[in-house]
Amino acid sequence: MSLSHEQAMLLAIEEGQKGWGFVSPNPAVGCVILDSSNNLLSKGYHKKFGGPHAEINALNAIKNKSLLKEATVYVTLEPCAHEGKTPSCALELVNYPIKKIIYGITDPNPLVAGKGHEILSKSNIQTHCFSDLSNSDSVNVLLEELCETFLYNINQKKAFIALKVATSLDGKIALENGESQWITNEHSRYYVHFLRGKYDAIIVGRGTLEKDNPKLNIRHEKYANKDIKIVILDPQGRSVNFLPQSNINKLHNKNNIFIICDKKISSTDFNTIYCPMEGSSFNLAALQKILYENHIYSAFVEGGNFVYSEFLKQKTFNTLYHFTAPKILGAGLGWSDLLKLKSLDQSILLKKQSQMEFKEDSLSTYVLNL
Amino acid sequence: MSLSHEQAMLLAIEEGQKGWGFVSPNPAVGCVILDSSNNLLSKGYHKKFGGPHAEINALNAIKNKSLLKEATVYVTLEPCAHEGKTPSCALELVNYPIKKIIYGITDPNPLVAGKGHEILSKSNIQTHCFSDLSNSDSVNVLLEELCETFLYNINQKKAFIALKVATSLDGKIALENGESQWITNEHSRYYVHFLRGKYDAIIVGRGTLEKDNPKLNIRHEKYANKDIKIVILDPQGRSVNFLPQSNINKLHNKNNIFIICDKKISSTDFNTIYCPMEGSSFNLAALQKILYENHIYSAFVEGGNFVYSEFLKQKTFNTLYHFTAPKILGAGLGWSDLLKLKSLDQSILLKKQSQMEFKEDSLSTYVLNL
Repeated sequence: MSLSHEQAMLLAIEEGQKGWGFVSPNPAVGCVILDSSNNLLSKGYHKKFGGPHAEINALNAIKNKSLLKEATVYVTLEPCAHEGKTPSCALELVNYPIKKIIYGITDPNPLVAGKGHEILSKSNIQTHCFSDLSNSDSVNVLLEELCETFLYNINQKKAFIALKVATSLDGKIALENGESQWITNEHSRYYVHFLRGKYDAIIVGRGTLEKDNPKLNIRHEKYANKDIKIVILDPQGRSVNFLPQSNINKLHNKNNIFIICDKKISSTDFNTIYCPMEGSSFNLAALQKILYENHIYSAFVEGGNFVYSEFLKQKTFNTLYHFTAPKILGAGLGWSDLLKLKSLDQSILLKKQSQMEFKEDSLSTYVLNL
Repeated sequence: MSLSHEQAMLLAIEEGQKGWGFVSPNPAVGCVILDSSNNLLSKGYHKKFGGPHAEINALNAIKNKSLLKEATVYVTLEPCAHEGKTPSCALELVNYPIKKIIYGITDPNPLVAGKGHEILSKSNIQTHCFSDLSNSDSVNVLLEELCETFLYNINQKKAFIALKVATSLDGKIALENGESQWITNEHSRYYVHFLRGKYDAIIVGRGTLEKDNPKLNIRHEKYANKDIKIVILDPQGRSVNFLPQSNINKLHNKNNIFIICDKKISSTDFNTIYCPMEGSSFNLAALQKILYENHIYSAFVEGGNFVYSEFLKQKTFNTLYHFTAPKILGAGLGWSDLLKLKSLDQSILLKKQSQMEFKEDSLSTYVLNL
């Protein structure tokens, strides 16, 4: 079956998504190769940090390289020009009788942007950016999303932050008596584990840690072996007393647990990282830089309401995953209640990116609408 | 263009919807007539209470009645067998050389259910209920929705109740300082006026009346001339002092304003209706019966939070229209905050029926999931 530009690029995106959670701080990248009649020859993706790039995996999947005559390569990101942990993909691709290369996004690194394109086109391979050939907004949104943490990291040198909140229809995360398990259904909760896997770390406040004693591991088959990092927001470092007997300590490698505090904590064998305060909360823009410098390139914020409210107030988040169950709880704990606005024109404005359904529940994904 | 069963019935539903808000307590009904080749001959709907039925309007739209030879009639509700304000539609239809009649919903009145069908089929017109010919769930949902207030009225002898709430993403209807205008956008608010028009009355609490002094008229071209009834929930009847100088009094005929109270109010020239209390609130199931007996067959509840919370608590509503704007308000007034639950298994469970988008806002419509 002959594939269109859009079909081929969507297939490459789908490939690339398989790398989510395993390639940080590299981008997730997928690649698809079509023969001279635009039939599928092979697929490949960047599987793990330090491993071969998507293009190389797609090339290696073709035993008989003569099939590459007049082939078209679709890759979600511009093939790299530089030698890093692996050889340059652009220099590798020119060794084959490929006719066309269509890439999704130009390399955002200003030092190498366009260089891959240049190497390829100089060797007489027809090289195009996808957006020059197609005006499919939906494909372009998915291309950006595929490597959104990477793009943000490269441009900002800060950790990418996603908030996740699961509420009733009336915006509650618990009853007044504290009961909160469960508001959303098992399908939503399973997907939360998948989402966790995409990120380098989970961020949680000390209050939630001590109240719920959560496991914060990843109970999803794709990420069964991933020990996600845990970042605890705890200005006074008081969680060092609770942590030794916590579920987190049982289920995670101690090296992967980080306490963020604003003073020196002695006598603890947990990692502590200093972050400056801004009033009664951390300066979260500073935290984003500090996480980045500590090789935490993306983080998934799971509450509680003090933590959510601060990220909202300081507008220091990139994505909000909002799960909603079609039920009403009435009086209870709202997730944003500690955010205090003086007038409606201070409202935090969001833009919806997508919506998914999990049986009766739904997940809407938003970005800040600045 | 030849129409399928589904296309023809959808067209009949669309016709019937034009009658929403004008036919109560009759059902909204639409009719479409196709010629012997299933091409559209005419359309008609029940325009106003007491006026001709949909079938008659569709028949009258055909000047040359010989075109009805071998015609098929699609009508959203079983043609009536009985003489009421107008002659029996079934007896009228048999006067023409119609081949087939396909109706959406069997007349829910047990005294006449199936009688229209019987009259028609006895005269050798092939007569079918739509669900016997098609298993399109979406058409059946729309058929029910078209006359949902009528079906509920007939079956329950109670007023049909719709709650409408417009909130931020975090479930707030106002800031802590009371500021609430506006959370949703102008497109959402225009659609609220359309929705108001579908109902016989708006229900509002005394608190909201006195705090906001709302107009509660219908600012939508379709219903520009409709003076919707206003029902004020006010146990002590204290609004009689506020009402004379209110916007409601300026914009509505006094006969259309009703104060619901639990005691006799003297010295007022507004209508007062007694309703029993249940604790600190009205018994809302009793209110539904009382409204029905007072010729208010459907009502649209517009707050405030005490009123919403009571309708939720007593589970006395048929539909919830939930408008959401993609913005976060933080601390503020929640619409359901006066509902107090002891455990999550008491949550009010809903079922989503549909979703519409109004630019960045969305409207989700729910029913109780009993």
